[in-house]
Amino acid sequence: MGLIVQKFGGTSVADAVRIHRAARKAIDAKERGNQVVVVVSAMGDTTDDLIDLAKQVCTVGDREIAPPKREMDQLLVTGEQVTIALFAMAICAQGHQAISFTGGQIGLLTDESFSKARIQSINKQKIFKELDAGKIVIVAGFQGVTSDGDYTTLGRGGSNATLVAVGAVLKADVCENYTDVDGIYTADPRIVKNARKIEKISYDEMLELSGLGASVLQTRAVEFAKKYNVPLHVRNSQNDNEGTWIVAETQNMEHIVVSGAALKKDLTRVTVKAVPDRPGIAARIFHSIAAANISVDDIIQNVMDDNTANISFTVEHGDLHDIKPIVEKLVKEFGGTTAAIYQGELAKVSVVGVGMRVHTGVAERMFDALAKAKVNIQNITTSEIKISCIIDKDHGPIALQAVHDAFDLGKARA
Amino acid sequence: MGLIVQKFGGTSVADAVRIHRAARKAIDAKERGNQVVVVVSAMGDTTDDLIDLAKQVCTVGDREIAPPKREMDQLLVTGEQVTIALFAMAICAQGHQAISFTGGQIGLLTDESFSKARIQSINKQKIFKELDAGKIVIVAGFQGVTSDGDYTTLGRGGSNATLVAVGAVLKADVCENYTDVDGIYTADPRIVKNARKIEKISYDEMLELSGLGASVLQTRAVEFAKKYNVPLHVRNSQNDNEGTWIVAETQNMEHIVVSGAALKKDLTRVTVKAVPDRPGIAARIFHSIAAANISVDDIIQNVMDDNTANISFTVEHGDLHDIKPIVEKLVKEFGGTTAAIYQGELAKVSVVGVGMRVHTGVAERMFDALAKAKVNIQNITTSEIKISCIIDKDHGPIALQAVHDAFDLGKARA
Repeated sequence: MGLIVQKFGGTSVADAVRIHRAARKAIDAKERGNQVVVVVSAMGDTTDDLIDLAKQVCTVGDREIAPPKREMDQLLVTGEQVTIALFAMAICAQGHQAISFTGGQIGLLTDESFSKARIQSINKQKIFKELDAGKIVIVAGFQGVTSDGDYTTLGRGGSNATLVAVGAVLKADVCENYTDVDGIYTADPRIVKNARKIEKISYDEMLELSGLGASVLQTRAVEFAKKYNVPLHVRNSQNDNEGTWIVAETQNMEHIVVSGAALKKDLTRVTVKAVPDRPGIAARIFHSIAAANISVDDIIQNVMDDNTANISFTVEHGDLHDIKPIVEKLVKEFGGTTAAIYQGELAKVSVVGVGMRVHTGVAERMFDALAKAKVNIQNITTSEIKISCIIDKDHGPIALQAVHDAFDLGKARA
Repeated sequence: MGLIVQKFGGTSVADAVRIHRAARKAIDAKERGNQVVVVVSAMGDTTDDLIDLAKQVCTVGDREIAPPKREMDQLLVTGEQVTIALFAMAICAQGHQAISFTGGQIGLLTDESFSKARIQSINKQKIFKELDAGKIVIVAGFQGVTSDGDYTTLGRGGSNATLVAVGAVLKADVCENYTDVDGIYTADPRIVKNARKIEKISYDEMLELSGLGASVLQTRAVEFAKKYNVPLHVRNSQNDNEGTWIVAETQNMEHIVVSGAALKKDLTRVTVKAVPDRPGIAARIFHSIAAANISVDDIIQNVMDDNTANISFTVEHGDLHDIKPIVEKLVKEFGGTTAAIYQGELAKVSVVGVGMRVHTGVAERMFDALAKAKVNIQNITTSEIKISCIIDKDHGPIALQAVHDAFDLGKARA
């Protein structure tokens, strides 16, 4: 007996057959004596199709305008609304009771940042009333409503944000995130053949892995789960296997030096050379980039002999087009011998584990493994529970396999 | 300078090109100095596609359950929501300001009769605020919200109900109903080649014509327009021609004996013979049929010499399957010599005009025309402004042409 919040992503509700399969999961949980809330995404490619429609409408002649963000959200929230209604019907067709709610209908209030709104509150009474009446409650993910009644969307991974927020406000025993994989792996199993499903991992480790390219869970959802201490269970919607539990850190976890390894591909390093070495210069650079909503990582600053500094950082290759004009503008502004260098075809291999805090020699073991695999390290960045190396993109798969083996990640834990 | 409410049906907003064409109509009206509100339907076949999806989900094995009506409405309202967002984007892409509202967002409150809800009130302040800010306001047709926040739909022709309700509450100067025809015709132009577009017609005449098979406007929308005295202008979304004005009756209108003719095809006459002739019997019959939500028409009762009566009425042929078991049950209940006869392959030809109130000889002229065309009349029913004849289905087109010619409907009015 407990309260379970389940979430099914777009591929798990892509057609009537899959919706029924997902509905069965909810019914099973209910029949085991739980109260069940289900959060769903838009079916399959629905969101992309709606975006395409908007693009068509916003193109006049050969000029494409940006659609007004409020109207874009007004459009996109319909995707999840279709799924909740069908999901509730599927449960009823299987002989159980269900009721569906849009974000607005459960008072999921957000701020007014259309397309990337933040959740402020949820009317839990409305959900509890239906749960107590014996119904399975279906909630539209990815969406909310402002206090003025305008619809908003929660940005990338928004349905996971809904999952965790609903779980937190209802004080759920577990949030089950159903996907098309069996859980979180020690490394991407498409690259590392002996990658193993992780049984249990801490919020902090998952946060690092999410940021490093493990795409199952977005950083924001994990942050939220950590903040409200909601256990997350990532599992496969196509089977009944136990997946990966993401939970608060226990002392036990520090016995494991490294929990997982990750590879981020297609990075470009930007180096701004001979920047005047005076206070506020780095802030000036990264403020301009942040204002354009581009994420940078792996920042390194070296001071030279001539009172200038070299500042380098990596960006995803796809952002290069947007970042170049910003950097060129800064170079012009700084004048003198300042110049920018762009080095593409890079990747980043990382290992993550809370055990690093108490174990020594982790970095050494990683560098040694990469050296033996003849992978040249171009940059190193570390955090308390993470070591990352920037390497040539071509070396990515070999490097990932090498560090995975060096920390025996493929071996079952005792 | 005035306030115009426009409505575009599903075919007029079926794709990006048509949405832009419709948006242009709204912008033109705005540029002529008017405040403009636009009501839109779901794009093309969207509603049918959603109903199909629901059917798929509600079929388990070979058993199909009726989807819960609340969830069906939750599903269907998304159709119009997609259109309003795209329509607002199209107006913005053409350089004007627009904002879209769902039924719920303008507080279009209804009762809780899911799938056929009735409008109770609309928050006009919300609309006026945006109009006064210079925006074109786009409203989702066909939908509303209950006081509990559940979404409802308004039934067949619901977008026209929205058009007229919004027009009434805003005290609009005109409600423009854009369709794919040039207006209301003196007869169906697909049958009668010299049918002519009517310039102006009274609410009552339009009500009769709508009930008799002229499908452009549903009876309910016309009733509403009449009640609140909102002028309706039915016109073509593909051109700028004047269409047909539907307005309050003026004395002038009585000069015209007949405004239009209509043909209703595929009728079946049900005759219940030798019914005991005692009070309450007719009520008993029609109560049972009404309870099954079947419309009957052209009711005739003849009392026979033996203290029994023959009661006959027509139903649309498509309803025969549903009505037969009801009638058979009644026949059994009445016992004695009571029996039911079903006569299919019938049609009804009618003429409508407020001028009938003051002109005599209208019925005679109609019967004479049908006789000359060798059309046999099987039943006659009349109202103050209408004469209808039940005829063989095969004679339908000839009969319609004959009465159309008899009243000179094809000739332009002076």
